[in-house]
Amino acid sequence: MHHYNLCCVGFGNVGRALVRLLETKRSELRERYDIEWRLSGVMSRSLGYIADLDGLNPAELVAGTPRHAPLAPETTFEGWLKAADADVVFEMSSLNPLTGQPASGYLRSALQYGAHAITANKGPIVHAYRALRDLARARGRAFRFEATVMDGAPIFSLFQEALPAVQVRAFRGILNSTTNLILGEMEHGHSLEAAVRRAQQLGIAETDPSADLDGWDAAVKVAALVTVILDTPLHPDEVQRIGIRALDSAEVQAAHAAGTPYKLICTARRGAHGVEASVAPERLQPGDPFALVGGTSSVVHFETDVLPGITITEHNPSPTTTAYGLLADFIAAVRT
Amino acid sequence: MHHYNLCCVGFGNVGRALVRLLETKRSELRERYDIEWRLSGVMSRSLGYIADLDGLNPAELVAGTPRHAPLAPETTFEGWLKAADADVVFEMSSLNPLTGQPASGYLRSALQYGAHAITANKGPIVHAYRALRDLARARGRAFRFEATVMDGAPIFSLFQEALPAVQVRAFRGILNSTTNLILGEMEHGHSLEAAVRRAQQLGIAETDPSADLDGWDAAVKVAALVTVILDTPLHPDEVQRIGIRALDSAEVQAAHAAGTPYKLICTARRGAHGVEASVAPERLQPGDPFALVGGTSSVVHFETDVLPGITITEHNPSPTTTAYGLLADFIAAVRT
Repeated sequence: MHHYNLCCVGFGNVGRALVRLLETKRSELRERYDIEWRLSGVMSRSLGYIADLDGLNPAELVAGTPRHAPLAPETTFEGWLKAADADVVFEMSSLNPLTGQPASGYLRSALQYGAHAITANKGPIVHAYRALRDLARARGRAFRFEATVMDGAPIFSLFQEALPAVQVRAFRGILNSTTNLILGEMEHGHSLEAAVRRAQQLGIAETDPSADLDGWDAAVKVAALVTVILDTPLHPDEVQRIGIRALDSAEVQAAHAAGTPYKLICTARRGAHGVEASVAPERLQPGDPFALVGGTSSVVHFETDVLPGITITEHNPSPTTTAYGLLADFIAAVRT
Repeated sequence: MHHYNLCCVGFGNVGRALVRLLETKRSELRERYDIEWRLSGVMSRSLGYIADLDGLNPAELVAGTPRHAPLAPETTFEGWLKAADADVVFEMSSLNPLTGQPASGYLRSALQYGAHAITANKGPIVHAYRALRDLARARGRAFRFEATVMDGAPIFSLFQEALPAVQVRAFRGILNSTTNLILGEMEHGHSLEAAVRRAQQLGIAETDPSADLDGWDAAVKVAALVTVILDTPLHPDEVQRIGIRALDSAEVQAAHAAGTPYKLICTARRGAHGVEASVAPERLQPGDPFALVGGTSSVVHFETDVLPGITITEHNPSPTTTAYGLLADFIAAVRT
């Protein structure tokens, strides 16, 4: 039996879902994978740095009422890792798409401390993938990030483990749930503004929805997939990007009624001059299976040298689905 | 660098595609995985037992003109494995759905000899899965079978590697390409008989198409998935099975025109009294994405405890796609 000290950086919806999922899976992890775990550290803006080598109480943390006082105000991130003796760090802080910070720094510190570094944050992938990957190799630790694109669906591990020796030539997908949900509302006659409010009420859209509406979130995901799966570093700025603000509600409704709806489509293709990537609204052709990917579901289709086409569709994700991506990374990290 | 002696049992379309694919990927295998290989043995009904520790000539074998005489007539399978000093055995003999033989016996001998055993044959999965899995564990070798269901799409390795700690509750799929192609022909006004002839001309249907038309091939695949992924041994006889012979061509055509086509649908669900599984033609509901899975493409949708739904679609497979399933198994076997 192996015992692991788990630490959470950020403790919002996904962090709470992760801790609940770890509890649900406790006996399965023990019986199938010889894994025992305790939560030895949590840090967040509201909680500060908390650590206890005897294990924090998951139920108290999920309820937002830990019995532990935060560590002294002068505590550093590195000091917290040490106080919690971190074996695995789950990095779930907010995305900064422009710099990838502070997430990248947290992950680097985690690896340097000797912990496995697992993130749900796509900023570090587009800003620091190769540096973090190489650091992880040098330290004999894992750097994993399955939850960054399509929540719990196994996109990165598909190519790392299940599909070896495959060259991806191109992909096409619907990768931003928020705009997909918003377009669905517009198809039923709502204005863009009303659709955004609805998505905000459901907790799907942010208070400032620009990152979704302008295609920026989707562009970061495209850049992350290209960087890792096409093994070609690509900055989100290099993704041709058109958002959904200019779409007319009546036209969206008519296109839907005709069975050829608008979707915010992500594409990338390796060509003679590197990788061309884009995010843009597209009116689908009749019979395109992407027309049936509604709500917060997502899809990606890969063209490869040996498999003519393989499509992965994820239906109705929740914070638990994202948490599962982190859990799968944890198991994979300690299995290898 | 690791050197492997590869042996092929059966050498039809898939075997030839495998050898061509291994050649295409030779430098990638060397550079990415430190794998060097030679083909040290081939056996088939027409070639007999052939072995050469210096390596057989792949191009000659693919052309059907090996320079090697077969081993002496009294050679046994075990004697051939030894003559070829097999490290990896690719088992690609014909399916016997009633007994799983002789494939199961070949795989057992391969593992007992100390080779990794990789099969494209679903007979051994439904008839001998647990025995072969346990033998492989005892011998420290791999027993893998990705190509048995959905060709090169990573269905088994999805749950073995990319989706740990997931409980599959149910699946639903289109798993038999031949009937899917035949139904497509019938949608365009052809009779069942004409559609079967067309599938035979394309090399998709067998001379005796009963195994496909009666849903037997699909039932074996369902039993294989239930046995492995739901970890519940299920015999093909226990799959409720209705084939496509009773479907009326005009009705198939009308259903297609209405956007609610007939498909041969495979299902399994874990219930209070074990696993219920079935194969039957189903007229799809409007908006069912399975309606868009045409030709020889295939699809499977999984419901799990942590991912509400994940769908894998494989488009337009060829013998190379099946060969890729075997190659992926080879890489996975020697990586672990």
